[in-house]
Amino acid sequence: MTGTDVRCVRWTRRHVLDVEGWSRDEIYMLLEQARHMEDLLSRPIKKVPALRGKLAVNLFFENSTRTRVSFELAEKMLSADVVNWSSSGSSTAKGETLRDTAWTLEAMGADVVVIRHGAVGAASYLASKLKRAVVMNAGDGAHAHPTQCLLDLYTAWKHLGDLEGKRVAIVGDVEHSRVARSDIIGFRTLGCQVTLSGPSTLMPFQVDHLGVQYERDVRRATEGADVIYLLRIQRERQQDGLFPSVDEYHRFWGATEELVREVNPKALVMHPGPINRGVEIESALADGENSVILEQVRSGVAVRMALLYLCAGGVA
Amino acid sequence: MTGTDVRCVRWTRRHVLDVEGWSRDEIYMLLEQARHMEDLLSRPIKKVPALRGKLAVNLFFENSTRTRVSFELAEKMLSADVVNWSSSGSSTAKGETLRDTAWTLEAMGADVVVIRHGAVGAASYLASKLKRAVVMNAGDGAHAHPTQCLLDLYTAWKHLGDLEGKRVAIVGDVEHSRVARSDIIGFRTLGCQVTLSGPSTLMPFQVDHLGVQYERDVRRATEGADVIYLLRIQRERQQDGLFPSVDEYHRFWGATEELVREVNPKALVMHPGPINRGVEIESALADGENSVILEQVRSGVAVRMALLYLCAGGVA
Amino acid sequence: MTGTDVRCVRWTRRHVLDVEGWSRDEIYMLLEQARHMEDLLSRPIKKVPALRGKLAVNLFFENSTRTRVSFELAEKMLSADVVNWSSSGSSTAKGETLRDTAWTLEAMGADVVVIRHGAVGAASYLASKLKRAVVMNAGDGAHAHPTQCLLDLYTAWKHLGDLEGKRVAIVGDVEHSRVARSDIIGFRTLGCQVTLSGPSTLMPFQVDHLGVQYERDVRRATEGADVIYLLRIQRERQQDGLFPSVDEYHRFWGATEELVREVNPKALVMHPGPINRGVEIESALADGENSVILEQVRSGVAVRMALLYLCAGGVA
Repeated sequence: MTGTDVRCVRWTRRHVLDVEGWSRDEIYMLLEQARHMEDLLSRPIKKVPALRGKLAVNLFFENSTRTRVSFELAEKMLSADVVNWSSSGSSTAKGETLRDTAWTLEAMGADVVVIRHGAVGAASYLASKLKRAVVMNAGDGAHAHPTQCLLDLYTAWKHLGDLEGKRVAIVGDVEHSRVARSDIIGFRTLGCQVTLSGPSTLMPFQVDHLGVQYERDVRRATEGADVIYLLRIQRERQQDGLFPSVDEYHRFWGATEELVREVNPKALVMHPGPINRGVEIESALADGENSVILEQVRSGVAVRMALLYLCAGGVA
Repeated sequence: MTGTDVRCVRWTRRHVLDVEGWSRDEIYMLLEQARHMEDLLSRPIKKVPALRGKLAVNLFFENSTRTRVSFELAEKMLSADVVNWSSSGSSTAKGETLRDTAWTLEAMGADVVVIRHGAVGAASYLASKLKRAVVMNAGDGAHAHPTQCLLDLYTAWKHLGDLEGKRVAIVGDVEHSRVARSDIIGFRTLGCQVTLSGPSTLMPFQVDHLGVQYERDVRRATEGADVIYLLRIQRERQQDGLFPSVDEYHRFWGATEELVREVNPKALVMHPGPINRGVEIESALADGENSVILEQVRSGVAVRMALLYLCAGGVA
Repeated sequence: MTGTDVRCVRWTRRHVLDVEGWSRDEIYMLLEQARHMEDLLSRPIKKVPALRGKLAVNLFFENSTRTRVSFELAEKMLSADVVNWSSSGSSTAKGETLRDTAWTLEAMGADVVVIRHGAVGAASYLASKLKRAVVMNAGDGAHAHPTQCLLDLYTAWKHLGDLEGKRVAIVGDVEHSRVARSDIIGFRTLGCQVTLSGPSTLMPFQVDHLGVQYERDVRRATEGADVIYLLRIQRERQQDGLFPSVDEYHRFWGATEELVREVNPKALVMHPGPINRGVEIESALADGENSVILEQVRSGVAVRMALLYLCAGGVA
């Protein structure tokens, strides 16, 4: 972690809905805070009382054990009380509107609501309806996944220092990926140059408007890249007809140790997980020296702790 | 909250199975306790150590995120340790009797068991089998939902003061509603006059025996009412053939701002939630000044905290 | 609990994967520790801070409310933070390998991972992949269920004292039972003589290699037994064609008060639960004086607390 010049900023955000609109200074302030949290996670006794007596509700309308558990751990490490509210069998299943669920949670005393939802904008809508509680977007449709982006930035920053001028290649099904969408914004805000690669049928329509380049050929796209970011291949997409077979995908876009050796032997290999070994990433590469995939998982808890602390840690 | 004359009573109940048989003084003692708990919920740090080192098990044989979360929050605010035991995949699914589940929970050290079950009398049966643990009925079939009743009484009392002589109209599918059954008993114990309304096919057979009146016409039923209590319309009932269509129901019994303005502009509008906007209640009414629906949700946590504290808070 | 001569041993195990290979002294050291934990469970405030700031993850690939809740309680009584990770909707369902799930959990900071899995060896495999976390096997296929075995030994020891030379009869579907497999090893390690009974189609192939005897006739098998251990009859086995009907099973191998009176009126009757009343055990026997079935449940929490304390309680 080399010296990044961060001006002293005050934290003013209440919610974490999207990384769009975040300033460079804000992001680095968060990353510095996450570093303190990660130190904490190395201690034998990991718990601190920062959110003691606060209530966090994890409202997951889509299944996601990984993200839910990462948030739950972050909440518990800060001593919050945690309740999991899944959609199955809930009021929602009985036809309750998201607005009414939001008001119900607030009436019950929720201080933080973490929401994952299949609809774009669900987190923002929830935030607009809540008077007091903090909302954390844990993924809304194909729109945004800001905490994943921030943990990715944190992981890259730990290895590369200030990200200004670094080169990032994002490979895979960008069109359907909220991770890609948020990561493009985040890396660009910190001054990175972003190139996309993958089947052209899986690219967003207006690549130019995103301020990124598209290179179908993965070798050209990753040439000299400091970060090679591989997206998870969702096998269910194959039925759309837009998607090559898993074998074809691996042949053309699957990342291998050989590729990394060629394009930049020092490149960081990242992936949001869970990985499909032998599809978007060769098994040896996933477990090799370039891979920081497990560090990303660890960063996830630290970054979420930092966000919870900054947004909900003060006396309300 | 105006001065209700409550004599100093000692709390003697171990379980909360039904409101039938509770005295006026007992109910008011609980409501006073709930008021202290609600104060607590307004503080930045909501937690108190009243049930520290006690085990609460939430045993839900029917799905109900709202009620389960409300209990879970109440338990956690009192610092109890909480375990959720749902029926799917449990020993019950493997053919264990409720009696054996009860004994198992007690052997594991449960101090409080909250049970929701589809069978009438499940909570009482459980209580009869437990030697030490406290049982809270979170709804048993169409029989009783005492904590919902007590939170309704608490909410009404906060607004109206002593409920003696107040008029309560309960509108909807009374026959299949454990909420209605418990609320009729609760409101009557505190001296209210209760009128039911709704399709006659959805009324209990012996309205007279319940000490209440039935008025098919909702305008007559709610004329001058201090509380208009709307029941949730369970769409699945429509298949019984006993039920009018949702549109018909709304036309004849759906509550609107216009109705409230006509019958009593100061009436409290209550609903156990989750609400069906546009069916039993007009959306504008749900969000309007008469509605205390969200206060009921908040009261739910406070009342459950009070019950847990009174029944299980002492040193065992 | 009479004086068992236990030499002072140091606890050196990191994981609890199987009871195979445990020494007599090790087992008794654990049982002594469990006794302290059970004392703790009798206090009004049951909680101790032994695992405060540690993370326990319960990773259940097979449904099992009983075992999961028993572990969860043990973890919470020791003040660990607890996260439940079930397989449905998790990364596993998305095709993640167990190895990657393991690494993910460790990266997230898990100090203890409790795993139940349908595949033999899953717990050992997990342990081989984790660098720091402690693994507790909560059942792997038909292979082992070490914590059940240890709680059974604890329960028997409390009643019978040193188990050297005691006679244990295990009755039921031994072939498919991980409980039987672990209990045979555990009881034999403590010097018991073990006899199996049940339909010959449900016996393991090489009874001799296990160091036990097989007696088809339940009366002969249990004659003079100090412990009669009944296995749960899994009704789904009947479809295999290897299994007699439930009625037949009860007639030939179902345990009754009469049987116990005949073979040894002081015998302990044990069962891992949940019980099928009227199948493997007569209802009156389950609730009678010989039965220690509920004590086993209570022992389960104490034994799991002791294991967690010994394996994960030190400063990491």
